[in-house]
Amino acid sequence: MQDASNNQSFNDGVRAYLMGLQTRIMDAVEALDAQGQVNSDVWQKAAHEPLQGSGVTKILEGGRIFERAGCGFSHVQGQSLPPSATQARPELVGASFDAMGVSLVFHPLNPYVPTVHMNVRMLSALTQDNTRVAWFGGGMDLTPYYGFREDAVHFHQTCREALSPFGEHLYPKFKSWCDDYFFLKHRQEARGIGGIFFDDFIEFGNEGSFAMLQAVGDAFLNAYMPIAKRRLSTPYGERERAHQLYRRGRYVEFNLVWDRGTHFGLQSGGRTESILLSMPPLVSWSYQHQDPVGSPERALLEDFLVPQNWLG
Amino acid sequence: MQDASNNQSFNDGVRAYLMGLQTRIMDAVEALDAQGQVNSDVWQKAAHEPLQGSGVTKILEGGRIFERAGCGFSHVQGQSLPPSATQARPELVGASFDAMGVSLVFHPLNPYVPTVHMNVRMLSALTQDNTRVAWFGGGMDLTPYYGFREDAVHFHQTCREALSPFGEHLYPKFKSWCDDYFFLKHRQEARGIGGIFFDDFIEFGNEGSFAMLQAVGDAFLNAYMPIAKRRLSTPYGERERAHQLYRRGRYVEFNLVWDRGTHFGLQSGGRTESILLSMPPLVSWSYQHQDPVGSPERALLEDFLVPQNWLG
Repeated sequence: MQDASNNQSFNDGVRAYLMGLQTRIMDAVEALDAQGQVNSDVWQKAAHEPLQGSGVTKILEGGRIFERAGCGFSHVQGQSLPPSATQARPELVGASFDAMGVSLVFHPLNPYVPTVHMNVRMLSALTQDNTRVAWFGGGMDLTPYYGFREDAVHFHQTCREALSPFGEHLYPKFKSWCDDYFFLKHRQEARGIGGIFFDDFIEFGNEGSFAMLQAVGDAFLNAYMPIAKRRLSTPYGERERAHQLYRRGRYVEFNLVWDRGTHFGLQSGGRTESILLSMPPLVSWSYQHQDPVGSPERALLEDFLVPQNWLG
Repeated sequence: MQDASNNQSFNDGVRAYLMGLQTRIMDAVEALDAQGQVNSDVWQKAAHEPLQGSGVTKILEGGRIFERAGCGFSHVQGQSLPPSATQARPELVGASFDAMGVSLVFHPLNPYVPTVHMNVRMLSALTQDNTRVAWFGGGMDLTPYYGFREDAVHFHQTCREALSPFGEHLYPKFKSWCDDYFFLKHRQEARGIGGIFFDDFIEFGNEGSFAMLQAVGDAFLNAYMPIAKRRLSTPYGERERAHQLYRRGRYVEFNLVWDRGTHFGLQSGGRTESILLSMPPLVSWSYQHQDPVGSPERALLEDFLVPQNWLG
């Protein structure tokens, strides 16, 4: 008997889930941000481009809550897996593939509301004897400008609970992976307070691994929205805003210098405006900036942007 | 008879020239910008770091003319040339080396004043039979937010005149090199209106090549200051400022994604705050931004940020 995941309907199911997730999340963003309107933009790669594919970009800019909240769905098809993907899998050399995913970054206006990133994706290929192999990747991570332990705990707790039905080994593994990945080596700073990250995931087969991916995607609104709602009315002034713009520079530095997806995407002819949805709307740099000892801005650096066990 | 450039005094002479150039340029910046004050910062690499070295950073932030104008001198010593530098020069495998240079980026406040970048540098090593080999590199390029043909012509004319005594072949070669280098492939846009760029230059021997480097460094103030002075009183409003902040995003994208020096420096443990002197003080991103047809903002893209022959 052939595994049901071999036929095209498996890919169709993943695609439908991802597009539904994008809609659910951006509907929730629009519902929260009374002032903002989410614009949808459907794009398609031109026939002469190396990868065929299409996508939907949903973005809210200049909102009351979100200064910029972008969420992209994309689905590209390739004629032949790149060598990097087949090095350990000779049976897949020359296989055509589908890559699809949802990726989001929200940059709130209020500096007390953290920036958040989430990504869920699948790479899927058929071997020559018609067996489908699917790898899953993604995760979510939180980048506060002012640190609150209860927010970090809530975010990590929600991630752990989402993964728990699939095995208690997953959260610690994906949590460490996230700490390692979202680290600015040139600053020796974590990008934020972490979360979970995984790649090339295949442990539970196609169906089981996809179920885990869904659990991660479905947990996003529960992980982030309560934190956003708790902080969005906190009063702030020029000092907090300046701190937020300065710290956003770290986000830019990480994404353009270290993030493999962003860097590779830009260098290999990906869709620039979709890749750079993650950029903050407004950012500042200044030389040798130092936060005063004892300030909450300094506490962010010393107490929060250091990888640690948030769940005690 | 041994070439005079074999002894240490050749390196000392280059070092003295570079430090003097940095001072001359930043004195001129301070003289122009009545409100700003140039701060000097002397730094030294800690003994445990892989490269030994020191430098002087001069920077003006929040000026009346320059929102951020940084100029760095650095001089590092290495125990052994990296393989990339000795691939075509087996006689230098294992040679110790000196690398020194001056690099600047000025980000003016008024959007009618262009951003400018200049760099002059030398890599110098001794072969086992005590022959000094020195390679020179650098150049300068201009990035306007509003295009003025006369500014582009003046900048290129000054570059050509600086190189002319060393041979009429140099300007066309270095001009094309600059166009090729400062190009954002992911946007299919030039970073600016170009200028000159060269690397691994050794054509006139140590002394002669250094003389050419000096001609380039010495030409900088003549190339840029008349343009800055001509534009700094042009009135502007929110529209021009928004355009400038948006275009500065391209500067960030180029430097963090494509510029080999910046990218390699950050990934290999260079001094982050010195490397990122080039970052603009304030930058914005927005999705699918389009300048109206017929606007001066659109003309920048269509008529100026396209490599072309400025000297007719």
